[in-house]
Amino acid sequence: MPSGKILVAQGGGPTAVINQSLVGVVLESRRFQHVTRVYGALHGVRGIINEEFVDLTQETSHNLELVAATPSSALGSTRDKPDIAYCQQIFEVLRAHEIEHFFYIGGNDSSDTVRIVSEEAHKAGYPLRCIHIPKTIDNDLVGSDHTPGFPSAARFVAQAFAGANLDNAALPGVYVGVVMGRHAGFLTAASALGKKFPDDGPHLIYLPERVFVLEQFLADVKATYEKYGRCVIAVSEGIHDASGEPIASLLARQVGNEVERDAHGNVQLSGTGALADLLCDEIKAKLGIKRVRGDTFGYLQRSFIGCVSDVDQREAREVGEKAVQFAMWGDRDGSVAIKRTGFYSVDYELLPLTEVAGKTRTMEDEFISASGTDVTDAFRLYLRPLLGSGMPDAFRLRAAKVAKVLKP
Amino acid sequence: MPSGKILVAQGGGPTAVINQSLVGVVLESRRFQHVTRVYGALHGVRGIINEEFVDLTQETSHNLELVAATPSSALGSTRDKPDIAYCQQIFEVLRAHEIEHFFYIGGNDSSDTVRIVSEEAHKAGYPLRCIHIPKTIDNDLVGSDHTPGFPSAARFVAQAFAGANLDNAALPGVYVGVVMGRHAGFLTAASALGKKFPDDGPHLIYLPERVFVLEQFLADVKATYEKYGRCVIAVSEGIHDASGEPIASLLARQVGNEVERDAHGNVQLSGTGALADLLCDEIKAKLGIKRVRGDTFGYLQRSFIGCVSDVDQREAREVGEKAVQFAMWGDRDGSVAIKRTGFYSVDYELLPLTEVAGKTRTMEDEFISASGTDVTDAFRLYLRPLLGSGMPDAFRLRAAKVAKVLKP
Repeated sequence: MPSGKILVAQGGGPTAVINQSLVGVVLESRRFQHVTRVYGALHGVRGIINEEFVDLTQETSHNLELVAATPSSALGSTRDKPDIAYCQQIFEVLRAHEIEHFFYIGGNDSSDTVRIVSEEAHKAGYPLRCIHIPKTIDNDLVGSDHTPGFPSAARFVAQAFAGANLDNAALPGVYVGVVMGRHAGFLTAASALGKKFPDDGPHLIYLPERVFVLEQFLADVKATYEKYGRCVIAVSEGIHDASGEPIASLLARQVGNEVERDAHGNVQLSGTGALADLLCDEIKAKLGIKRVRGDTFGYLQRSFIGCVSDVDQREAREVGEKAVQFAMWGDRDGSVAIKRTGFYSVDYELLPLTEVAGKTRTMEDEFISASGTDVTDAFRLYLRPLLGSGMPDAFRLRAAKVAKVLKP
Repeated sequence: MPSGKILVAQGGGPTAVINQSLVGVVLESRRFQHVTRVYGALHGVRGIINEEFVDLTQETSHNLELVAATPSSALGSTRDKPDIAYCQQIFEVLRAHEIEHFFYIGGNDSSDTVRIVSEEAHKAGYPLRCIHIPKTIDNDLVGSDHTPGFPSAARFVAQAFAGANLDNAALPGVYVGVVMGRHAGFLTAASALGKKFPDDGPHLIYLPERVFVLEQFLADVKATYEKYGRCVIAVSEGIHDASGEPIASLLARQVGNEVERDAHGNVQLSGTGALADLLCDEIKAKLGIKRVRGDTFGYLQRSFIGCVSDVDQREAREVGEKAVQFAMWGDRDGSVAIKRTGFYSVDYELLPLTEVAGKTRTMEDEFISASGTDVTDAFRLYLRPLLGSGMPDAFRLRAAKVAKVLKP
């Protein structure tokens, strides 16, 4: 006889709407009569192997709705990337607790975890339904039009650049804003949606999909500064040279500094202002421009409370709900994907885990301008509906100039 | 016969609501029949000496309202700090254009400019009415309960820390957020308003009103990290040692780097992530904590479009309107000040320029806790009404823990 136990967990970097998906799973699964318990694992897969579960069946729907509207991962998250042995441990815990449905909300790594756990259950002949629920501000999952979490982060980046552009217009100089995204430039490209008038910034956008050449960068900045008397630049933290070395570590090495690397040998790109500072130093030194300022958007772009796309909220809720429906009415494991069906509407489908797991999407060529430092109208058309309603807008004075008296 | 010409300009760092004050001046002055022209100077005092004026009489009230809701200085701004000779030049241009009312929206430096121009006009026997309209995110003008621009920036900082705290709770570690404010800690202290539950961050707040001792800082962080398994820290960019040397330049010197100084010898504190990075390096090296992340809020905190206090918007509009009314119905120059008259209501008065000009307010002792790393309830009571309506709120799951099966 089935136990009717469900487990849900959240993995990887938090987003503004990941709790919508969590609450979508909880509320939808509580509608099914055979579901006896809805467990949540604390801090993702680590909470599973440590058996740290909370009983979400004993949470009010009212508080769940309030948590849904709160950014970051309410269950806690983890950066653990399970290998086969780790996944086998996960499976053993699920079996011990008689879990029959496992929902994991996360990015590429999380989808790979779900795939391995699913395979382990199949090998053991244990009836476990495993569903991956997409989440990432990087928008780098294959098979989906876009991923929940990306639209809200994109909205933050667009609003940040719209404001930084106004600030830079008031006090002209060069402004460098560094945006998250190690391999995919979608979030950095979202800066273009903060632009309204033709001479607005960001004037230059540097994406990890294109090789970064320092000399060309300096030439681009110089030309823009000469044209507009100012220059606003959006830079992905993941920009790299032709050999693939991150510019952050390359410039740091030039000035004799080290950069932090994680267990996978990846250079630490977030939580440091080094790249922005190093690029600013280059511009000051090589171009002789005095007012050069750099900001690193850091954790604000994924966790700032109060900047969210309502479209993103709705879709994040729905991928959670659909995950439960696919699990209950379908007969296979998989990864929930968003398909665009209109301008603007979406539907959801369940992709085989092997189609998504561990794969990385980067920006399509049709989204990047020929210059390599701007986006195309195709990208604007793609992104704008995702940003949702009530986007703030910037207006200018248009008043006529007054004739000079002293120095006409 | 009077010319009926008015001039308005914006100086110093932009804010989210400085255009409200501009539009308050323009719309209110257009109501007076004897006013023939309302000029705006481009880029503050520099636009005045260069005679770069636009005629705001020829701007629609509709577009003015839209500009009012747009952050940053619509007329452009400047960092010029006029000396006596510069102010004399300003006065000569005003006289040449037959300006009879001069409104300057800005901080302490701007109020000092207004004071000198007022004195020059008086000496020359030229009938010029000079009014300073307060604006600064630093909240460091004396004589006012608070300054327009501060509440919206404070709201951004509170929302940023509310989000950063949620992020840090999901993926525990140490988080350092660096906030603007060279001498006054009001904006950094606003981080405390992002805190809801007792174990929420920011757990530690470092203000320029207190001497920063690195060893004590490290001890504070260690104790907090041991207590909560994580630590969220708000740091003012202006923290300094007992001798007054900024910690940013002190730490930079230790690792052999230089810091940029402006014409006044001030160390560049904004537009660089150096302080956050240096503090993070200290924590990693001395406390052996692995996950240490630093963000510098940079220009986002004053220019982010879409994060504004409605109270701030209303008051910024009113100081502009009142400036015109004081000029038209009163018979003296001065600086508009906000007085708190209820919980929560305000009224406005005109202070003598000498009472405000060039002076700097810092946080009152009653606002800082005895530990020196937190704010008092008096500060929370002071700041909360200023943040306005619709502040986003963070909610938590409260679900019951599930008993372990494998390792009970």
